[in-house]
Amino acid sequence: MAFQGEPGAYGEGAVADYWGGAATAVPARACADVARLVASGAVERGVLPVENSLAGSVAAAYDALLAFPEVRVVGEVVRPIHHCLLARSGVALGELTTVASHPIALAQCGAFLARHPRLEPHPAHDTAGAARLVAERGDRGAAAIAGEGAAARWGLAVLATNLEDRPDNRTRFVVLGREPAELEPGEPARTALVAVTDNVPGALVRLLAPVAELGLNLSALESRPTGEPWSYRFVLEVEHQAGDPRLDDALAALGRAAREVRVVGTFARAG
Amino acid sequence: MAFQGEPGAYGEGAVADYWGGAATAVPARACADVARLVASGAVERGVLPVENSLAGSVAAAYDALLAFPEVRVVGEVVRPIHHCLLARSGVALGELTTVASHPIALAQCGAFLARHPRLEPHPAHDTAGAARLVAERGDRGAAAIAGEGAAARWGLAVLATNLEDRPDNRTRFVVLGREPAELEPGEPARTALVAVTDNVPGALVRLLAPVAELGLNLSALESRPTGEPWSYRFVLEVEHQAGDPRLDDALAALGRAAREVRVVGTFARAG
Repeated sequence: MAFQGEPGAYGEGAVADYWGGAATAVPARACADVARLVASGAVERGVLPVENSLAGSVAAAYDALLAFPEVRVVGEVVRPIHHCLLARSGVALGELTTVASHPIALAQCGAFLARHPRLEPHPAHDTAGAARLVAERGDRGAAAIAGEGAAARWGLAVLATNLEDRPDNRTRFVVLGREPAELEPGEPARTALVAVTDNVPGALVRLLAPVAELGLNLSALESRPTGEPWSYRFVLEVEHQAGDPRLDDALAALGRAAREVRVVGTFARAG
Repeated sequence: MAFQGEPGAYGEGAVADYWGGAATAVPARACADVARLVASGAVERGVLPVENSLAGSVAAAYDALLAFPEVRVVGEVVRPIHHCLLARSGVALGELTTVASHPIALAQCGAFLARHPRLEPHPAHDTAGAARLVAERGDRGAAAIAGEGAAARWGLAVLATNLEDRPDNRTRFVVLGREPAELEPGEPARTALVAVTDNVPGALVRLLAPVAELGLNLSALESRPTGEPWSYRFVLEVEHQAGDPRLDDALAALGRAAREVRVVGTFARAG
Protein backbone atom coordinates (compact mmCIF):
# COMPACT_ATOMS: atom_id res chain seq x y z
CA MET A 1 0.00 0.00 0.00
CA ALA A 2 1.70 3.18 -1.23
CA PHE A 3 1.79 6.50 0.66
CA GLN A 4 3.25 9.90 -0.20
CA GLY A 5 6.39 10.76 1.70
CA GLU A 6 9.35 9.01 3.28
CA PRO A 7 9.29 6.40 6.06
CA GLY A 8 7.77 7.94 9.19
CA ALA A 9 5.37 10.22 7.26
CA TYR A 10 1.77 10.74 8.39
CA GLY A 11 0.60 8.74 5.35
CA GLU A 12 2.41 5.69 6.73
CA GLY A 13 0.23 6.03 9.82
CA ALA A 14 -2.87 6.20 7.60
CA VAL A 15 -1.83 2.87 6.04
CA ALA A 16 -1.55 1.32 9.51
CA ASP A 17 -4.95 2.76 10.50
CA TYR A 18 -6.63 1.38 7.41
CA TRP A 19 -5.21 -2.10 7.41
CA GLY A 20 -4.16 -2.46 11.05
CA GLY A 21 -0.59 -3.52 10.25
CA ALA A 22 -1.64 -6.16 7.70
CA ALA A 23 -0.23 -4.14 4.77
CA THR A 24 3.33 -3.24 3.78
CA ALA A 25 3.65 0.54 3.49
CA VAL A 26 5.52 1.60 0.34
CA PRO A 27 6.92 5.17 0.26
CA ALA A 28 6.38 7.26 -2.91
CA ARG A 29 7.84 10.70 -3.58
CA ALA A 30 4.79 12.56 -4.86
CA CYS A 31 0.99 12.14 -4.85
CA ALA A 32 1.11 11.35 -8.59
CA ASP A 33 3.57 8.53 -7.85
CA VAL A 34 1.10 6.97 -5.39
CA ALA A 35 -1.65 6.98 -8.06
CA ARG A 36 0.79 5.65 -10.70
CA LEU A 37 1.82 2.72 -8.46
CA VAL A 38 -1.85 1.80 -7.92
CA ALA A 39 -2.71 2.20 -11.63
CA SER A 40 0.17 -0.02 -12.72
CA GLY A 41 -0.66 -2.78 -10.24
CA ALA A 42 2.71 -2.37 -8.47
CA VAL A 43 0.74 -1.94 -5.21
CA GLU A 44 -2.79 -3.00 -4.24
CA ARG A 45 -3.80 0.26 -2.59
CA GLY A 46 -2.55 3.81 -2.05
CA VAL A 47 -3.38 6.63 0.38
CA LEU A 48 -3.50 10.31 -0.56
CA PRO A 49 -4.04 13.21 1.88
CA VAL A 50 -6.90 15.24 0.35
CA GLU A 51 -7.68 17.74 3.08
CA ASN A 52 -6.37 19.08 6.37
CA SER A 53 -8.76 20.78 8.78
CA LEU A 54 -6.39 23.74 9.32
CA ALA A 55 -4.64 24.11 5.97
CA GLY A 56 -7.37 23.09 3.52
CA SER A 57 -7.35 20.85 0.48
CA VAL A 58 -4.24 19.30 -1.07
CA ALA A 59 -4.15 20.27 -4.74
CA ALA A 60 -1.51 17.67 -5.65
CA ALA A 61 -3.75 14.85 -4.37
CA TYR A 62 -6.71 16.04 -6.45
CA ASP A 63 -4.47 16.41 -9.50
CA ALA A 64 -3.24 12.82 -9.04
CA LEU A 65 -6.86 11.58 -8.99
CA LEU A 66 -7.58 13.54 -12.18
CA ALA A 67 -4.43 12.33 -13.96
CA PHE A 68 -5.10 8.60 -13.43
CA PRO A 69 -8.76 7.96 -14.36
CA GLU A 70 -8.23 4.18 -14.02
CA VAL A 71 -7.70 4.66 -10.27
CA ARG A 72 -10.77 4.57 -8.00
CA VAL A 73 -11.39 5.89 -4.50
CA VAL A 74 -12.32 2.84 -2.38
CA GLY A 75 -12.17 4.24 1.15
CA GLU A 76 -11.15 7.06 3.46
CA VAL A 77 -9.20 7.46 6.70
CA VAL A 78 -9.35 10.48 9.03
CA ARG A 79 -6.33 10.84 11.31
CA PRO A 80 -5.56 13.32 14.12
CA ILE A 81 -2.36 15.20 13.25
CA HIS A 82 -0.03 16.31 16.04
CA HIS A 83 3.17 17.95 14.90
CA CYS A 84 6.48 17.79 16.81
CA LEU A 85 9.66 19.84 16.63
CA LEU A 86 12.49 17.40 15.88
CA ALA A 87 16.23 18.02 16.14
CA ARG A 88 19.46 16.09 16.62
CA SER A 89 19.90 14.57 20.03
CA GLY A 90 21.47 16.96 22.56
CA VAL A 91 20.53 20.14 20.68
CA ALA A 92 18.63 22.82 22.65
CA LEU A 93 15.73 24.85 21.24
CA GLY A 94 17.82 28.04 21.50
CA GLU A 95 20.45 26.63 19.10
CA LEU A 96 17.97 26.14 16.25
CA THR A 97 17.90 28.54 13.31
CA THR A 98 15.86 26.74 10.62
CA VAL A 99 12.82 24.47 10.63
CA ALA A 100 11.98 22.43 7.53
CA SER A 101 8.68 20.73 6.72
CA HIS A 102 6.02 20.29 4.06
CA PRO A 103 4.41 23.70 3.35
CA ILE A 104 1.01 22.33 4.39
CA ALA A 105 2.46 21.23 7.76
CA LEU A 106 4.15 24.63 8.22
CA ALA A 107 0.75 26.25 7.52
CA GLN A 108 -0.74 24.25 10.43
CA CYS A 109 1.86 25.62 12.87
CA GLY A 110 1.47 29.36 12.19
CA ALA A 111 1.16 30.38 15.86
CA PHE A 112 4.23 28.35 16.91
CA LEU A 113 6.31 29.85 14.07
CA ALA A 114 5.11 33.37 14.95
CA ARG A 115 6.24 32.81 18.57
CA HIS A 116 9.68 31.65 17.36
CA PRO A 117 10.74 34.22 14.75
CA ARG A 118 14.40 33.05 15.03
CA LEU A 119 13.33 29.74 13.41
CA GLU A 120 13.32 30.33 9.66
CA PRO A 121 10.74 28.03 8.00
CA HIS A 122 12.05 26.05 4.98
CA PRO A 123 9.66 24.21 2.62
CA ALA A 124 10.36 20.50 2.04
CA HIS A 125 8.75 17.72 -0.02
CA ASP A 126 7.62 15.83 3.00
CA THR A 127 7.56 16.03 6.80
CA ALA A 128 9.47 12.77 7.30
CA GLY A 129 11.91 13.64 4.49
CA ALA A 130 12.68 16.91 6.30
CA ALA A 131 13.32 14.86 9.48
CA ARG A 132 15.67 12.51 7.57
CA LEU A 133 17.74 15.45 6.31
CA VAL A 134 18.08 16.81 9.86
CA ALA A 135 19.35 13.37 10.95
CA GLU A 136 21.71 12.92 8.01
CA ARG A 137 23.24 16.39 7.79
CA GLY A 138 25.64 17.67 10.43
CA ASP A 139 23.85 20.99 11.03
CA ARG A 140 22.97 21.45 14.75
CA GLY A 141 20.84 24.51 13.89
CA ALA A 142 18.45 22.51 11.69
CA ALA A 143 15.06 21.27 12.93
CA ALA A 144 12.07 19.64 11.25
CA ILE A 145 8.33 19.66 11.92
CA ALA A 146 7.03 16.09 11.59
CA GLY A 147 5.23 13.39 13.54
CA GLU A 148 6.45 11.16 16.35
CA GLY A 149 6.77 8.36 13.80
CA ALA A 150 9.41 10.37 11.96
CA ALA A 151 11.31 11.04 15.21
CA ALA A 152 11.41 7.30 15.94
CA ARG A 153 12.28 6.36 12.37
CA TRP A 154 15.18 8.82 12.01
CA GLY A 155 16.48 8.78 15.60
CA LEU A 156 15.72 12.42 16.40
CA ALA A 157 14.88 14.10 19.69
CA VAL A 158 11.40 15.61 20.21
CA LEU A 159 11.94 19.18 21.51
CA ALA A 160 8.26 20.24 21.50
CA THR A 161 4.91 18.58 20.82
CA ASN A 162 1.45 19.69 19.65
CA LEU A 163 2.80 22.49 17.46
CA GLU A 164 -0.47 22.65 15.47
CA ASP A 165 -2.66 25.76 15.83
CA ARG A 166 -5.60 23.72 17.15
CA PRO A 167 -5.55 20.40 19.04
CA ASP A 168 -8.41 19.00 16.90
CA ASN A 169 -6.21 19.21 13.78
CA ARG A 170 -6.84 16.28 11.43
CA THR A 171 -6.21 15.11 7.89
CA ARG A 172 -8.55 13.14 5.66
CA PHE A 173 -6.86 10.57 3.40
CA VAL A 174 -8.57 8.75 0.53
CA VAL A 175 -7.69 5.12 -0.20
CA LEU A 176 -7.06 4.27 -3.86
CA GLY A 177 -7.64 0.94 -5.59
CA ARG A 178 -8.43 -0.42 -9.02
CA GLU A 179 -11.79 -2.16 -8.35
CA PRO A 180 -14.96 -0.59 -6.88
CA ALA A 181 -15.38 -0.98 -3.12
CA GLU A 182 -18.05 -3.40 -1.86
CA LEU A 183 -20.54 -1.82 0.51
CA GLU A 184 -23.39 -3.17 2.65
CA PRO A 185 -26.78 -1.71 1.65
CA GLY A 186 -27.60 1.27 3.87
CA GLU A 187 -24.00 1.78 4.97
CA PRO A 188 -23.01 5.50 5.29
CA ALA A 189 -21.11 6.25 2.08
CA ARG A 190 -19.67 8.97 -0.09
CA THR A 191 -19.39 9.11 -3.89
CA ALA A 192 -16.58 11.12 -5.48
CA LEU A 193 -17.15 12.53 -8.98
CA VAL A 194 -15.32 14.64 -11.54
CA ALA A 195 -17.41 17.09 -13.60
CA VAL A 196 -16.40 19.40 -16.43
CA THR A 197 -18.77 22.31 -17.10
CA ASP A 198 -18.95 24.89 -19.84
CA ASN A 199 -17.60 28.22 -18.68
CA VAL A 200 -20.96 30.04 -18.70
CA PRO A 201 -22.68 32.06 -15.95
CA GLY A 202 -24.47 29.80 -13.53
CA ALA A 203 -22.80 26.56 -14.70
CA LEU A 204 -21.69 25.62 -11.20
CA VAL A 205 -25.13 26.32 -9.71
CA ARG A 206 -26.78 24.18 -12.42
CA LEU A 207 -24.36 21.41 -11.45
CA LEU A 208 -25.00 21.61 -7.71
CA ALA A 209 -28.72 22.46 -7.59
CA PRO A 210 -30.05 18.94 -8.44
CA VAL A 211 -27.86 17.42 -5.71
CA ALA A 212 -29.28 19.85 -3.16
CA GLU A 213 -32.87 19.38 -4.41
CA LEU A 214 -32.53 15.62 -3.81
CA GLY A 215 -31.55 16.38 -0.19
CA LEU A 216 -28.04 14.96 -0.65
CA ASN A 217 -25.18 16.70 1.16
CA LEU A 218 -22.23 17.93 -0.86
CA SER A 219 -19.30 17.16 1.46
CA ALA A 220 -16.47 18.35 -0.81
CA LEU A 221 -16.11 20.64 -3.81
CA GLU A 222 -12.71 21.35 -5.32
CA SER A 223 -11.97 23.10 -8.62
CA ARG A 224 -8.78 22.33 -10.53
CA PRO A 225 -7.63 24.04 -13.73
CA THR A 226 -7.89 22.17 -17.04
CA GLY A 227 -4.79 24.02 -18.35
CA GLU A 228 -6.94 26.14 -20.68
CA PRO A 229 -6.81 29.54 -18.89
CA TRP A 230 -9.67 30.02 -16.40
CA SER A 231 -11.41 26.73 -17.27
CA TYR A 232 -12.00 24.13 -14.54
CA ARG A 233 -12.78 20.56 -13.63
CA PHE A 234 -14.70 20.08 -10.39
CA VAL A 235 -14.23 17.21 -7.95
CA LEU A 236 -17.41 16.71 -5.88
CA GLU A 237 -18.18 14.35 -3.03
CA VAL A 238 -21.80 13.52 -2.24
CA GLU A 239 -22.93 11.85 1.02
CA HIS A 240 -25.54 9.09 0.87
CA GLN A 241 -26.36 5.60 2.12
CA ALA A 242 -25.10 2.71 -0.01
CA GLY A 243 -27.90 1.78 -2.43
CA ASP A 244 -29.74 5.12 -2.04
CA PRO A 245 -31.71 5.53 -5.31
CA ARG A 246 -31.28 9.34 -5.08
CA LEU A 247 -27.64 8.87 -6.04
CA ASP A 248 -28.65 7.56 -9.47
CA ASP A 249 -31.04 10.50 -9.86
CA ALA A 250 -28.25 12.89 -8.90
CA LEU A 251 -25.84 11.28 -11.39
CA ALA A 252 -28.43 11.56 -14.16
CA ALA A 253 -29.01 15.24 -13.34
CA LEU A 254 -25.27 15.91 -13.19
CA GLY A 255 -24.87 14.21 -16.56
CA ARG A 256 -27.41 16.66 -18.04
CA ALA A 257 -25.84 19.73 -16.39
CA ALA A 258 -22.16 18.98 -17.10
CA ARG A 259 -20.20 18.54 -20.29
CA GLU A 260 -18.66 15.39 -18.79
CA VAL A 261 -19.14 13.46 -15.52
CA ARG A 262 -17.06 10.56 -14.19
CA VAL A 263 -17.63 8.60 -10.98
CA VAL A 264 -14.29 8.26 -9.15
CA GLY A 265 -15.64 5.87 -6.54
CA THR A 266 -18.24 5.08 -3.88
CA PHE A 267 -16.78 4.25 -0.48
CA ALA A 268 -17.64 3.88 3.22
CA ARG A 269 -17.53 7.10 5.26
CA ALA A 270 -14.88 7.19 8.01
CA GLY A 271 -17.12 9.15 10.38
CA MET B 1 3.83 48.68 -3.38
CA ALA B 2 4.62 45.35 -1.74
CA PHE B 3 4.93 42.00 -3.56
CA GLN B 4 5.54 38.46 -2.32
CA GLY B 5 9.00 37.16 -3.05
CA GLU B 6 12.50 38.48 -3.49
CA PRO B 7 13.74 41.01 -6.05
CA GLY B 8 13.19 39.60 -9.55
CA ALA B 9 10.01 37.69 -8.62
CA TYR B 10 6.98 37.63 -10.91
CA GLY B 11 5.10 39.81 -8.42
CA GLU B 12 7.65 42.58 -9.02
CA GLY B 13 6.64 42.45 -12.69
CA ALA B 14 2.98 42.74 -11.66
CA VAL B 15 3.83 45.94 -9.76
CA ALA B 16 5.49 47.36 -12.89
CA ASP B 17 2.47 46.34 -15.02
CA TYR B 18 0.02 48.01 -12.65
CA TRP B 19 1.80 51.28 -12.08
CA GLY B 20 4.06 51.41 -15.12
CA GLY B 21 7.24 52.01 -13.15
CA ALA B 22 5.73 54.83 -11.05
CA ALA B 23 5.81 52.71 -7.85
CA THR B 24 8.66 51.40 -5.72
CA ALA B 25 8.36 47.59 -5.44
CA VAL B 26 8.90 46.37 -1.85
CA PRO B 27 9.71 42.66 -1.38
CA ALA B 28 7.86 40.72 1.36
CA ARG B 29 8.56 37.14 2.39
CA ALA B 30 5.01 35.72 2.51
CA CYS B 31 1.55 36.63 1.21
CA ALA B 32 0.48 37.48 4.77
CA ASP B 33 3.39 39.96 5.01
CA VAL B 34 2.13 41.76 1.88
CA ALA B 35 -1.34 42.15 3.44
CA ARG B 36 0.20 43.22 6.79
CA LEU B 37 2.31 45.94 5.12
CA VAL B 38 -0.82 47.30 3.37
CA ALA B 39 -2.93 47.11 6.56
CA SER B 40 -0.33 48.97 8.64
CA GLY B 41 0.08 51.74 6.07
CA ALA B 42 3.78 50.89 5.54
CA VAL B 43 3.00 50.63 1.81
CA GLU B 44 0.18 52.15 -0.28
CA ARG B 45 -0.61 48.98 -2.26
CA GLY B 46 0.28 45.28 -2.44
CA VAL B 47 -0.03 42.55 -5.06
CA LEU B 48 -0.93 38.93 -4.30
CA PRO B 49 -0.96 36.07 -6.85
CA VAL B 50 -4.41 34.47 -6.43
CA GLU B 51 -4.53 32.01 -9.32
CA ASN B 52 -2.36 30.45 -12.00
CA SER B 53 -3.98 29.01 -15.12
CA LEU B 54 -1.97 25.76 -14.88
CA ALA B 55 -1.53 25.25 -11.13
CA GLY B 56 -4.79 26.65 -9.75
CA SER B 57 -5.50 28.94 -6.83
CA VAL B 58 -2.95 30.12 -4.28
CA ALA B 59 -4.25 29.23 -0.82
CA ALA B 60 -1.76 31.49 1.00
CA ALA B 61 -3.04 34.54 -0.92
CA TYR B 62 -6.67 33.80 0.00
CA ASP B 63 -5.66 33.21 3.62
CA ALA B 64 -3.89 36.59 3.68
CA LEU B 65 -7.10 38.29 2.43
CA LEU B 66 -9.11 36.51 5.13
CA ALA B 67 -6.63 37.35 7.91
CA PHE B 68 -6.59 41.12 7.27
CA PRO B 69 -10.23 42.24 6.92
CA GLU B 70 -9.14 45.92 6.87
CA VAL B 71 -7.43 45.29 3.50
CA ARG B 72 -9.51 45.72 0.32
CA VAL B 73 -9.04 44.41 -3.20
CA VAL B 74 -8.79 47.51 -5.42
CA GLY B 75 -7.62 46.03 -8.73
CA GLU B 76 -6.25 43.04 -10.62
CA VAL B 77 -3.39 42.32 -13.00
CA VAL B 78 -3.12 39.29 -15.31
CA ARG B 79 0.44 38.50 -16.43
CA PRO B 80 1.78 35.87 -18.87
CA ILE B 81 4.22 33.62 -17.00
CA HIS B 82 7.20 32.15 -18.86
CA HIS B 83 9.58 30.15 -16.72
CA CYS B 84 13.33 29.85 -17.39
CA LEU B 85 15.98 27.42 -16.17
CA LEU B 86 18.66 29.47 -14.44
CA ALA B 87 22.16 28.38 -13.42
CA ARG B 88 25.58 29.86 -12.71
CA SER B 89 27.35 31.25 -15.72
CA GLY B 90 29.38 28.60 -17.63
CA VAL B 91 27.43 25.62 -16.24
CA ALA B 92 26.00 23.16 -18.82
CA LEU B 93 22.56 21.55 -18.53
CA GLY B 94 24.18 18.11 -18.13
CA GLU B 95 25.99 19.22 -14.95
CA LEU B 96 22.77 20.10 -13.11
CA THR B 97 21.38 17.79 -10.42
CA THR B 98 18.80 19.91 -8.55
CA VAL B 99 16.27 22.56 -9.55
CA ALA B 100 14.69 24.75 -6.88
CA SER B 101 11.56 26.87 -7.22
CA HIS B 102 8.24 27.72 -5.63
CA PRO B 103 6.05 24.55 -5.57
CA ILE B 104 3.41 26.32 -7.69
CA ALA B 105 6.05 27.15 -10.33
CA LEU B 106 7.35 23.54 -10.26
CA ALA B 107 3.75 22.39 -10.82
CA GLN B 108 3.59 24.50 -14.00
CA CYS B 109 6.68 22.75 -15.45
CA GLY B 110 5.59 19.10 -15.03
CA ALA B 111 6.43 18.06 -18.59
CA PHE B 112 9.91 19.65 -18.48
CA LEU B 113 10.69 17.99 -15.14
CA ALA B 114 9.43 14.61 -16.44
CA ARG B 115 11.78 14.93 -19.45
CA HIS B 116 14.72 15.69 -17.09
CA PRO B 117 14.48 13.07 -14.33
CA ARG B 118 18.13 13.75 -13.33
CA LEU B 119 17.01 17.20 -12.11
CA GLU B 120 15.64 16.70 -8.60
CA PRO B 121 12.96 19.34 -7.86
CA HIS B 122 13.40 21.20 -4.55
CA PRO B 123 10.62 23.39 -3.11
CA ALA B 124 11.55 26.99 -2.22
CA HIS B 125 9.70 30.01 -0.79
CA ASP B 126 9.92 31.95 -3.97
CA THR B 127 11.15 31.67 -7.57
CA ALA B 128 13.51 34.65 -7.31
CA GLY B 129 14.72 33.54 -3.86
CA ALA B 130 15.65 30.16 -5.37
CA ALA B 131 17.60 32.03 -8.08
CA ARG B 132 19.41 34.10 -5.44
CA LEU B 133 20.53 30.95 -3.61
CA VAL B 134 21.89 29.48 -6.87
CA ALA B 135 23.89 32.70 -7.36
CA GLU B 136 25.15 32.90 -3.77
CA ARG B 137 26.04 29.27 -3.12
CA GLY B 138 29.01 27.63 -4.80
CA ASP B 139 27.11 24.55 -6.06
CA ARG B 140 27.52 24.14 -9.86
CA GLY B 141 24.83 21.41 -9.87
CA ALA B 142 22.11 23.74 -8.58
CA ALA B 143 19.55 25.38 -10.88
CA ALA B 144 16.40 27.40 -10.30
CA ILE B 145 13.15 27.87 -12.19
CA ALA B 146 12.28 31.57 -12.26
CA GLY B 147 11.62 34.45 -14.63
CA GLU B 148 14.02 36.44 -16.81
CA GLY B 149 13.78 39.22 -14.23
CA ALA B 150 15.36 36.94 -11.64
CA ALA B 151 18.18 35.97 -14.07
CA ALA B 152 18.98 39.63 -14.62
CA ARG B 153 18.70 40.53 -10.92
CA TRP B 154 20.96 37.74 -9.67
CA GLY B 155 23.41 37.51 -12.61
CA LEU B 156 22.50 33.98 -13.69
CA ALA B 157 22.61 32.35 -17.12
CA VAL B 158 19.36 31.30 -18.84
CA LEU B 159 19.84 27.65 -19.97
CA ALA B 160 16.29 27.07 -21.24
CA THR B 161 13.15 29.17 -21.71
CA ASN B 162 9.38 28.54 -21.82
CA LEU B 163 9.52 25.65 -19.34
CA GLU B 164 5.78 25.96 -18.61
CA ASP B 165 3.45 23.14 -19.76
CA ARG B 166 1.43 25.51 -21.97
CA PRO B 167 2.56 28.74 -23.67
CA ASP B 168 -0.64 30.55 -22.58
CA ASN B 169 0.30 30.14 -18.90
CA ARG B 170 -0.71 33.18 -16.85
CA THR B 171 -1.18 34.33 -13.27
CA ARG B 172 -3.86 36.64 -11.93
CA PHE B 173 -2.73 39.01 -9.17
CA VAL B 174 -5.07 41.11 -7.03
CA VAL B 175 -4.04 44.60 -5.95
CA LEU B 176 -4.60 45.44 -2.28
CA GLY B 177 -5.28 48.84 -0.78
CA ARG B 178 -7.02 50.40 2.22
CA GLU B 179 -9.67 52.55 0.46
CA PRO B 180 -12.34 51.38 -2.04
CA ALA B 181 -11.40 51.72 -5.72
CA GLU B 182 -13.13 54.44 -7.77
CA LEU B 183 -14.84 53.13 -10.89
CA GLU B 184 -16.59 54.80 -13.83
CA PRO B 185 -20.29 53.83 -14.08
CA GLY B 186 -20.68 50.90 -16.51
CA GLU B 187 -16.99 49.90 -16.32
CA PRO B 188 -16.45 46.08 -16.35
CA ALA B 189 -15.88 45.17 -12.71
CA ARG B 190 -15.63 42.35 -10.24
CA THR B 191 -16.69 42.25 -6.60
CA ALA B 192 -14.88 39.93 -4.18
CA LEU B 193 -16.79 38.68 -1.12
CA VAL B 194 -16.23 36.41 1.86
CA ALA B 195 -19.19 34.31 3.03
CA VAL B 196 -19.53 31.95 5.99
CA THR B 197 -22.34 29.39 5.74
CA ASP B 198 -23.78 26.93 8.20
CA ASN B 199 -22.55 23.43 7.50
CA VAL B 200 -25.93 22.07 6.30
CA PRO B 201 -26.86 20.20 3.10
CA GLY B 202 -27.39 22.61 0.25
CA ALA B 203 -25.82 25.64 2.00
CA LEU B 204 -23.46 26.34 -0.88
CA VAL B 205 -26.24 26.07 -3.48
CA ARG B 206 -28.43 28.44 -1.44
CA LEU B 207 -25.50 30.87 -1.47
CA LEU B 208 -24.84 30.66 -5.21
CA ALA B 209 -28.37 30.32 -6.61
CA PRO B 210 -29.44 33.99 -6.18
CA VAL B 211 -26.26 35.16 -7.96
CA ALA B 212 -27.05 32.86 -10.91
CA GLU B 213 -30.75 33.85 -10.95
CA LEU B 214 -29.74 37.50 -11.30
CA GLY B 215 -27.68 36.54 -14.38
CA LEU B 216 -24.39 37.49 -12.72
CA ASN B 217 -21.33 35.35 -13.48
CA LEU B 218 -19.43 33.80 -10.60
CA SER B 219 -15.82 34.12 -11.77
CA ALA B 220 -14.12 32.64 -8.70
CA LEU B 221 -15.09 30.39 -5.79
CA GLU B 222 -12.54 29.29 -3.23
CA SER B 223 -13.21 27.52 0.07
CA ARG B 224 -10.80 27.93 2.97
CA PRO B 225 -11.04 26.16 6.35
CA THR B 226 -12.18 28.12 9.41
CA GLY B 227 -9.98 25.93 11.65
CA GLU B 228 -13.03 24.14 13.06
CA PRO B 229 -12.74 20.71 11.34
CA TRP B 230 -14.62 20.57 8.01
CA SER B 231 -16.11 24.06 8.33
CA TYR B 232 -15.40 26.65 5.61
CA ARG B 233 -15.35 30.26 4.56
CA PHE B 234 -15.97 30.91 0.87
CA VAL B 235 -14.32 33.64 -1.18
CA LEU B 236 -16.50 34.51 -4.20
CA GLU B 237 -15.95 36.87 -7.10
CA VAL B 238 -18.94 38.16 -9.06
CA GLU B 239 -18.66 39.89 -12.46
CA HIS B 240 -20.78 42.96 -13.17
CA GLN B 241 -20.66 46.50 -14.54
CA ALA B 242 -19.86 49.25 -12.04
CA GLY B 243 -23.17 50.59 -10.71
CA ASP B 244 -25.18 47.49 -11.78
CA PRO B 245 -28.20 47.44 -9.38
CA ARG B 246 -28.20 43.60 -9.54
CA LEU B 247 -25.06 43.60 -7.38
CA ASP B 248 -27.01 45.14 -4.48
CA ASP B 249 -29.74 42.53 -5.00
CA ALA B 250 -27.13 39.77 -4.99
CA LEU B 251 -25.54 41.11 -1.79
CA ALA B 252 -28.93 41.25 -0.11
CA ALA B 253 -29.67 37.65 -1.14
CA LEU B 254 -26.22 36.50 -0.01
CA GLY B 255 -26.79 38.20 3.32
CA ARG B 256 -29.97 36.14 3.79
CA ALA B 257 -28.33 32.84 2.72
CA ALA B 258 -25.05 33.15 4.65
CA ARG B 259 -24.28 33.40 8.34
CA GLU B 260 -21.92 36.27 7.52
CA VAL B 261 -21.00 38.18 4.33
CA ARG B 262 -18.22 40.74 3.87
CA VAL B 263 -17.40 42.68 0.69
CA VAL B 264 -13.63 42.55 0.12
CA GLY B 265 -13.70 45.03 -2.75
CA THR B 266 -15.11 46.09 -6.12
CA PHE B 267 -12.47 46.65 -8.79
CA ALA B 268 -11.95 47.03 -12.54
CA ARG B 269 -11.57 43.79 -14.50
CA ALA B 270 -8.19 43.31 -16.18
CA GLY B 271 -9.69 41.59 -19.22
